[in-house]
Amino acid sequence: MHKKLFIPGPTEVRREVLEAQAKWMIGHRMNEFSELFYSVTEKVKKALGTKNHVFIFTSSATGVMEGTLRNVVEKKFLSTICGAFSERWYKIGLANGKEGDVIEVEWGKAIKPDMIEEKLKTGKYEAVLVTYNETSTGVMNPLKEIGEMMKNYPDVLLLVDAVSAMMGAPIKPEEWGIDVVFASVQKAFALPPGLTVTVVSEKAIEKAKKVKNRGYYFDFLGMLKKYEEKHQTPATPAVSLLYAMDYQMDRILEEGVEARYKRHAVMAEFTRKWALKHGFEMFPEKGYESPTVSTIKNTKGFSVKDLNKELAKRGYAISNGYGKLKEQTFRIGHMGDVTLFELKELLWHIEEIWNLK
Amino acid sequence: MHKKLFIPGPTEVRREVLEAQAKWMIGHRMNEFSELFYSVTEKVKKALGTKNHVFIFTSSATGVMEGTLRNVVEKKFLSTICGAFSERWYKIGLANGKEGDVIEVEWGKAIKPDMIEEKLKTGKYEAVLVTYNETSTGVMNPLKEIGEMMKNYPDVLLLVDAVSAMMGAPIKPEEWGIDVVFASVQKAFALPPGLTVTVVSEKAIEKAKKVKNRGYYFDFLGMLKKYEEKHQTPATPAVSLLYAMDYQMDRILEEGVEARYKRHAVMAEFTRKWALKHGFEMFPEKGYESPTVSTIKNTKGFSVKDLNKELAKRGYAISNGYGKLKEQTFRIGHMGDVTLFELKELLWHIEEIWNLK
Repeated sequence: MHKKLFIPGPTEVRREVLEAQAKWMIGHRMNEFSELFYSVTEKVKKALGTKNHVFIFTSSATGVMEGTLRNVVEKKFLSTICGAFSERWYKIGLANGKEGDVIEVEWGKAIKPDMIEEKLKTGKYEAVLVTYNETSTGVMNPLKEIGEMMKNYPDVLLLVDAVSAMMGAPIKPEEWGIDVVFASVQKAFALPPGLTVTVVSEKAIEKAKKVKNRGYYFDFLGMLKKYEEKHQTPATPAVSLLYAMDYQMDRILEEGVEARYKRHAVMAEFTRKWALKHGFEMFPEKGYESPTVSTIKNTKGFSVKDLNKELAKRGYAISNGYGKLKEQTFRIGHMGDVTLFELKELLWHIEEIWNLK
Repeated sequence: MHKKLFIPGPTEVRREVLEAQAKWMIGHRMNEFSELFYSVTEKVKKALGTKNHVFIFTSSATGVMEGTLRNVVEKKFLSTICGAFSERWYKIGLANGKEGDVIEVEWGKAIKPDMIEEKLKTGKYEAVLVTYNETSTGVMNPLKEIGEMMKNYPDVLLLVDAVSAMMGAPIKPEEWGIDVVFASVQKAFALPPGLTVTVVSEKAIEKAKKVKNRGYYFDFLGMLKKYEEKHQTPATPAVSLLYAMDYQMDRILEEGVEARYKRHAVMAEFTRKWALKHGFEMFPEKGYESPTVSTIKNTKGFSVKDLNKELAKRGYAISNGYGKLKEQTFRIGHMGDVTLFELKELLWHIEEIWNLK
């Protein structure tokens, strides 16, 4: 049975988008491919309103988390840890032989610009890593404000994991001073997983030119060269996923990104009100709740596992809390193409299963 | 217009396989995914007759070329260069800060066991890199014989790029003493690109445990842990491509791998005879011609570019020579699911366009 996905990724993909994958295969060195890849790339630039470089890697975002550090950090970075994925990024840095210092807040809290600025004053860092939307806790960090603050530190790069945010919440690479920002497409893009969009500033490109052992598969300079030469990629890309992405980018542009961000904000607000009305509490610090995934405290001690089993029978899936938050919280993803009506339908089922008044 | 692909990858993918991608999306932490991933992985093991570990990465093989070196080579490897892709692998090693020595033969020639053995006697190497089927020249290197010879050097790992070979030609990981062998699925698997199958011996796993800075995305130990725990992957995999792969592995097992290898050998032999009959010559050294891609010397000085333009109108695509071999050779890929009948049809069109007697 098809379960509609209200998990924080992969998200629900529309039938016509799934079917767009099934076009006949083409060669990645043929003109047809260059046209396709150019089309997808330019549509992403248009949606984000950016003139920065856009690279689309065949990998999950985890690969690009690694690639970003290998491209632009020679030695020392500053991590901001507020959940499982920001912690993963830090560990990836260490697994690649880089040195990292850490700002860490309790899960559920947000990273504030002044926390970062205090560390930056030491002058020790080449880059700051920020997780825009921490999928494990449902916290959205104040990226715009962090970017503003970092304009006082022009030698330090701002690197952003926007995995569960891009296309669901505003991101302005140039205006906010973001040097690298990436997101996999199985979240708010509402596409099947396997591709990661990466937006790279000229400053980051210049930095990469000075970094040794950048590796090959995620090398920004290799991607740039091949794109500029022929609108192609150095290695064979996932052509069928790009078919679906080209189709979906048209749908996103047709909705309009501002309308899309608004839809996400409305769904998030509806979910929060629903949670409070039924006596739950929000897990994130007030004012920093994510517009794409709501993490709700399981204050009533229900079994989230049993809830999901019952929802499965009715054709839905939500997520339990992440890692140590399992059963203490539950997460409802409302991102991608799902509508407020579909969300209301899901919440109605939860009310019925848990017998909420 | 749909062009049937006789290029050396991506290869033609059957309509029903393309459509298998379009199933509803599932979460990669749901039981449905574990079942899917286990199913695909075990079918690959069955097809290869191996008990070694099988990891399926979401990336092109280029990523795993890099990952393999990062996993199991601390310092020094020996490359065997006989074309563009074996050279790429060497460069990837250097781009990751490893040291590499090189055995190099003229393009079109094969790598022989004694060339490698001479170097191995120095005792300087942790691993030998062999490209089983060099896609740029159409040469198949004698992997089985290389593996036999290397049994005298048990401390040296044998790492194999089998990109345009796996599922089109025999590979026996244990019997031939191969420690790592990988292939992307858009070649003889006849699938859309985006996944890379990697077969890893216990010896390679033990070596990886001693290597630092293995990285994260392509880390064998991370893949092993997550597979053994839950039949899952550390990062989000390309679910829709795995749907197609699960379906296609059934088709491959139904044909039978021996029959599949035989079909490839028959198509290759037919193509060689056709080439010679029409006054062309084969580019590869005699006895080392690839069963999956035939590289033919353009002894008549026809325009390969124009041929492909005309073939395009008739619904076919072949490949020009690779890099410096452009227009000096042309390449006909006969791998994956294409049949001898389809190949004959293609060759008939070439005869007609070039007015061959």
